[in-house]
Amino acid sequence: MEKTGFQNRMEIVQRRMEEAGIGCFLIGPSSTMKYLTGYSGRADERLFVLVMAAGQKPFVVANKLYELQASVIPIPAEDFLYWSDGDNGVEVLCRELQRRGVDVSSTAVDKSMPGMFLVPLLKGLHGAKLSLGNALVDDLRVYKDRAERESMATACRLASEALRETIDRGGWWIGKTETEFMGQLAFEMTRRGLKLPSGIVAVGDHAAIPHHLTGQRVIEKGKCLLVDFGGNYQNYNTDMTRTIHFGEPSEEFRRVYEIVLEANRRGREAAKAGNRLQDVDRAARSYIEAQGYGPYFTHRTGHGIGIDGHEGPSAGEGETTVIGAGMAFSVEPGIYLPGRFGVRIEDQVLITEEGTRVLHDFTRELLVVK
Amino acid sequence: MEKTGFQNRMEIVQRRMEEAGIGCFLIGPSSTMKYLTGYSGRADERLFVLVMAAGQKPFVVANKLYELQASVIPIPAEDFLYWSDGDNGVEVLCRELQRRGVDVSSTAVDKSMPGMFLVPLLKGLHGAKLSLGNALVDDLRVYKDRAERESMATACRLASEALRETIDRGGWWIGKTETEFMGQLAFEMTRRGLKLPSGIVAVGDHAAIPHHLTGQRVIEKGKCLLVDFGGNYQNYNTDMTRTIHFGEPSEEFRRVYEIVLEANRRGREAAKAGNRLQDVDRAARSYIEAQGYGPYFTHRTGHGIGIDGHEGPSAGEGETTVIGAGMAFSVEPGIYLPGRFGVRIEDQVLITEEGTRVLHDFTRELLVVK
Repeated sequence: MEKTGFQNRMEIVQRRMEEAGIGCFLIGPSSTMKYLTGYSGRADERLFVLVMAAGQKPFVVANKLYELQASVIPIPAEDFLYWSDGDNGVEVLCRELQRRGVDVSSTAVDKSMPGMFLVPLLKGLHGAKLSLGNALVDDLRVYKDRAERESMATACRLASEALRETIDRGGWWIGKTETEFMGQLAFEMTRRGLKLPSGIVAVGDHAAIPHHLTGQRVIEKGKCLLVDFGGNYQNYNTDMTRTIHFGEPSEEFRRVYEIVLEANRRGREAAKAGNRLQDVDRAARSYIEAQGYGPYFTHRTGHGIGIDGHEGPSAGEGETTVIGAGMAFSVEPGIYLPGRFGVRIEDQVLITEEGTRVLHDFTRELLVVK
Repeated sequence: MEKTGFQNRMEIVQRRMEEAGIGCFLIGPSSTMKYLTGYSGRADERLFVLVMAAGQKPFVVANKLYELQASVIPIPAEDFLYWSDGDNGVEVLCRELQRRGVDVSSTAVDKSMPGMFLVPLLKGLHGAKLSLGNALVDDLRVYKDRAERESMATACRLASEALRETIDRGGWWIGKTETEFMGQLAFEMTRRGLKLPSGIVAVGDHAAIPHHLTGQRVIEKGKCLLVDFGGNYQNYNTDMTRTIHFGEPSEEFRRVYEIVLEANRRGREAAKAGNRLQDVDRAARSYIEAQGYGPYFTHRTGHGIGIDGHEGPSAGEGETTVIGAGMAFSVEPGIYLPGRFGVRIEDQVLITEEGTRVLHDFTRELLVVK
C-alpha cells in the first residue's frame, strides 16, 4: 500500500467528521488505525493515539519506545509527539489537544479504546460529548482496494498450501491429538509468513460444537476431523474450514457432507454483485432446510473479513446490503449433529469487477484418509 | 483451581468495594475476569459482563451464545442473565442493574472495557461517577497461590522442552529463516498444550533490536540467534529468552555473552524475599555498567508475570515493593550493540516460602551450533 492511499483514507474521514460536526476523533492501535495508517502495532498500557482533528492536520501522541515503529504512519515528522515513561500519556494528549486548539466539545473515540484511557480522558476533556467514531470508517473498509485484495488472496493461497501439507501426512495422524494437528498447521502457516495462526481442530462429535476449543481428543479411524483456521498476511485475514474423514465414513456422514457441499456451492453462486448479502444465506440455508437438516445449521452463513477476522456486514438473514465489487466474506454452511459429528465447508469469496473469486484453492470434495 | 478459591477472591473484592464506597464494578472478559472467575473466553463485540455489586450477590449478563462456556463462573444459575442477538446488551445490563437496585452512583470498570460498551454505558448510567476498578484486584494478583504456581511451573517446563527440541535440530537450521524457526517452536509448544505461542526470533544484528519482529532473515554460520518466546497454560504465562550462536562466535560475542550471563545470575540472586524489586535491577545493571556496557542495556531487568504476560510490579529502578512469597517475575538483562549483535538471557523466577525457584529448566551456558 502506498503512503498516498493511507493519506486519502485519512482525508475522507476528516471530511466526514466536518459533515458530522465531530471536532476530534481519537484512535488507538486497532484495525481502524491499521486501515487509516498501516501501523500494525498492538495496543498496550502505554497510550498511543492518532488524533484526527476537524480542519487541522492529523497528529500522533505515543510513547518514545515506539518511535521507530510509529514512523510508518504517513504524516510529517513534526506531527509526532512522544512522551516518556514517567509522564502521564493522557495528560500529554490533553495538553496537546489544547495547544493545537482542537475542538473537543464533540469527541469521537474508536470502539476499541479501553477504559484505562477513556476513564481519565473523561476527566481531561470535562464536558465533552463523547461518541463512537466507527461509522466514519467502517463502511469504507467494506470495499477492498487493489492492495487489500492482493494481501487477502496471498493469505488464502498460503493457508491452502499449509492445510494441504498438513493433511498430506494422511494416516500418520492416527493416534495424534487435535492439539498436535493444530501445532503442525501453525507451523506450516507460520513458516510461509502467515502471522497469528489460530484455529479449531475438532475430532468426532467435537465437530458438532461450532466453537469447539482444540484439545487432547485423539484422531482415530472412523472419525471426522473439522479444521477451521486462519491467520493474517500484511494485516489481512484468511479464514477457511474443511472437514475430512479418517477411515470409511458412514452413509449418513457422506449424505450430510454432500448436503453441506451443495449448500456451500449454492452460497458461493449467490455471492455475486447485485444480489443482497442475505441471498447468500438464503441460498445455502434453504437447501439444507429442504434436506431436513435446517435445525442443525445454527449460525449465519458468513461474515465479512479483512483487517478483522470477523467484520461487517454479514451474510445472514436481514442483511440487505447489496453485494458489490471489493466486498470479501466467508461462505460457511454447516450441519451439526450433537453427540455424533459435524460438517462445515468454508470458503472466502472476493467480489471483483470481473466476477466472484473464491480465494482458497483447496478441494471441497470429501477427503477420506485410509 | 477450586470453585471456592474464585469465590473467595470475589468476596475480597466485594469487601474492598464497600470500604472504597464503590457500589458497582463492571468486568468484561479480561485477565481480571480470569482471576476472579476462571472464565477464559475472549472479549468480542457481544457484551459479557460480571457485575460485582456492593451488598449484593455478583451476577453475569452475557449473550446466549456463551451460555455453555459461562457456566464455569462459580455463581448460582439464577444469577446469569442471557440476552440474544437482536437485543442491545448494554440496555439489558442497565435494566438489570436497576431491577436489582444496584447503586451505580459510583461505578468502577475494568481497565480493559472498550469504548463500544463504555460510551453507551455513560448514557445508560447518566450521572454516575466512573472510575477504574483495578486497584481492587491487581495487588491480590501479585501473590500467586498454589494452583497458580503449579500452572506457571508447568508452562515454563513445557516451554523449556519445546525450545530444547527446536534447538536440537542444530545445523539443520542453517539456511532456514527466523519465521521458520518460530514456526517450529510454535509447533513444539502447541503440541505440548501451550496456547497462544508467540515470540521474537532475531538473527544477527536483528538481535540488537529488543522488540524485533520475526521476519525472513536467514540463519547462517557466524550469526547469533536470539529467541524470546512465550505461551500460556491454564491461563498462566511463560516467558523466556536464550541467545545461541551458529558457528564459532567472535571473542567479543563471547565476552558480551558472559557479561549478560553473570548479570542474569546476579539478578536471580537478588530475587529473594526481603529485597526490593529494584534491587534485582540494580544487581544486574551495576555489573553490566561496571563492564562498560551500561548504555547498551536499554530496558528494565524484568516484569511481573501471571495471567498477563506482562503485569506489575516490575523489576526496575524506583520499584520499591518488597519481594515476598508468591511473586513471579522475569529476570532478563541484555546487551544490544546496534548493527552488530545482541544478547539477552531471560528466566522466570517464583518466590516461595522455601526460597526462589527458577521455573525454566534450560541451560544458560552459551550453545554454539557447529
